[in-house]
Amino acid sequence: MSGLRVRGLLALSATALGAYYLGSRTERLQQSSDVFPRLPGLPTFGTVSAASLVASNVNLTATPSRISEIMKFGFPGLDNVRSHSDYVLSYDRRNRIPHWVFEHLTAESVAKNDSVDRSKCDFKPDESIHPFFRSQNTDYRKSGFDRGHMAAAGNHRLHQKHCEETFYLSNMAPQVGQGFNRDAWNSLEMHVRKLTKSYSNVYVCTGPLYLPHKEDDGKMYVKYEVIGSNTVAVPTHFYKVIVGEAADHKLHMEAYVMPNKVISNDTPLNVFQVPPETVERAAGLLFFDQINRNQLASINGRKV
Amino acid sequence: MSGLRVRGLLALSATALGAYYLGSRTERLQQSSDVFPRLPGLPTFGTVSAASLVASNVNLTATPSRISEIMKFGFPGLDNVRSHSDYVLSYDRRNRIPHWVFEHLTAESVAKNDSVDRSKCDFKPDESIHPFFRSQNTDYRKSGFDRGHMAAAGNHRLHQKHCEETFYLSNMAPQVGQGFNRDAWNSLEMHVRKLTKSYSNVYVCTGPLYLPHKEDDGKMYVKYEVIGSNTVAVPTHFYKVIVGEAADHKLHMEAYVMPNKVISNDTPLNVFQVPPETVERAAGLLFFDQINRNQLASINGRKV
Repeated sequence: MSGLRVRGLLALSATALGAYYLGSRTERLQQSSDVFPRLPGLPTFGTVSAASLVASNVNLTATPSRISEIMKFGFPGLDNVRSHSDYVLSYDRRNRIPHWVFEHLTAESVAKNDSVDRSKCDFKPDESIHPFFRSQNTDYRKSGFDRGHMAAAGNHRLHQKHCEETFYLSNMAPQVGQGFNRDAWNSLEMHVRKLTKSYSNVYVCTGPLYLPHKEDDGKMYVKYEVIGSNTVAVPTHFYKVIVGEAADHKLHMEAYVMPNKVISNDTPLNVFQVPPETVERAAGLLFFDQINRNQLASINGRKV
Repeated sequence: MSGLRVRGLLALSATALGAYYLGSRTERLQQSSDVFPRLPGLPTFGTVSAASLVASNVNLTATPSRISEIMKFGFPGLDNVRSHSDYVLSYDRRNRIPHWVFEHLTAESVAKNDSVDRSKCDFKPDESIHPFFRSQNTDYRKSGFDRGHMAAAGNHRLHQKHCEETFYLSNMAPQVGQGFNRDAWNSLEMHVRKLTKSYSNVYVCTGPLYLPHKEDDGKMYVKYEVIGSNTVAVPTHFYKVIVGEAADHKLHMEAYVMPNKVISNDTPLNVFQVPPETVERAAGLLFFDQINRNQLASINGRKV
């Protein structure tokens, strides 16, 4: 049928595995690309080029084994997943920011590495997102908000490409800069990196929340700003849910929720700890769902 | 590994195909059900019981052929999809209401049928949704809002079971009752059913929107009420995007957005027509993405 459009081809190698798992590359392509025959069936499978298979030896593409490693304890959700070479992301097309990002850190991957230069990384639109839902640098300009990394640049120091891939705008959400992104939130990111000193493997899921509040009429409302011509959502809060795997293979969980506003620098991190279930209910996600919570050694530092 | 939980088993037959396509049944199960071995791999495949295979002869379960028929022109998204016997739904776990529902109507399926009695249908929680994200009748009670069907009960008159399945609370969203759900929105639903007189096949996608508005500070905000202890979102607007397939196989599209508020009964329906792209950008979805828009015979009654 001539009216049918191409689906799934042209997947970038870096995102091909997201497509492989989830059919996430089935978005309607722009008219100019509409020159390929339709691929039948659902889900659509992505293509992995020969070049990317070679490159995978040095872990510069999203190899199946690396994705399995990052996502070892389960996907929080399955919506619009993109698998990058060192993190996995689910994109919220309505809000133009992530649902969640997943990272796997080790002492090695967060260690300072002179061959990786963050200053050479540019914030760039993610071409794998359909233009209707793609955020742009102009959306953030003069908004008063930082382009806040969900997968932190400082967590990906093994290769320049790993660092660069954290600069896709699909990995950003609008964050208050001074007092939050550059302060309290940054402290939380540093805390997560420090956990690699206690644990052989650290898994962290990060994302936005849109929490309700009560107004004078006694009713509950969700309210958040949207910025730019692409109406990029400014979340009210952000979360991190972390699992550390100790040398004895015991698993420890921590969960944090921070308001997207100026936070006094003398506020200790544990003020922001919450039961993981609280984040799950608010986010509409289930974290580390292949781990039985009762089998955890600790949650927020307390024995389970 | 003893800490891993069961995934994907116990899928209800009615939702098994959603699981089949999308791995939507991978939610963590409650502790009491945690007695089965883990199923490896992603996505998880649902089970279809022998009983449901027999029943499928009379189209009382979600058969592959019926799902393909309903979704003929493409999935708007792939998040938490549930395939019922006569409609397909994507559930928004954060907002506890649908992302979208998809229906396929014919003159036969919407015709009055004395053997189908709507008054015998009860609003019921959808047990296939994880309890963290499941809306309850108590959430709506005293909220001032109707439990508004997304897949309309009146569109599913071939079998009592088809009608009953539209009463899952997962198919509901809070709607203003008098002046909207029982009036303007009902008129739109009747209009869609009437289209089966002009077209052999009518495909309709229905869902909520959360549209931003400008406030006095010059900034744009999304604001919506949430009701009940499960904080069920009250959308600001609802949409319907419709494709009618004529006897000559030409395709005609219509798209409507209505505010979730009292609408004067003398407002003509075409006031609510919008370009389909407008709904797509706002909803974060792509509708009928297997149809090339330029090959449509008409959009909102105008020749393409």
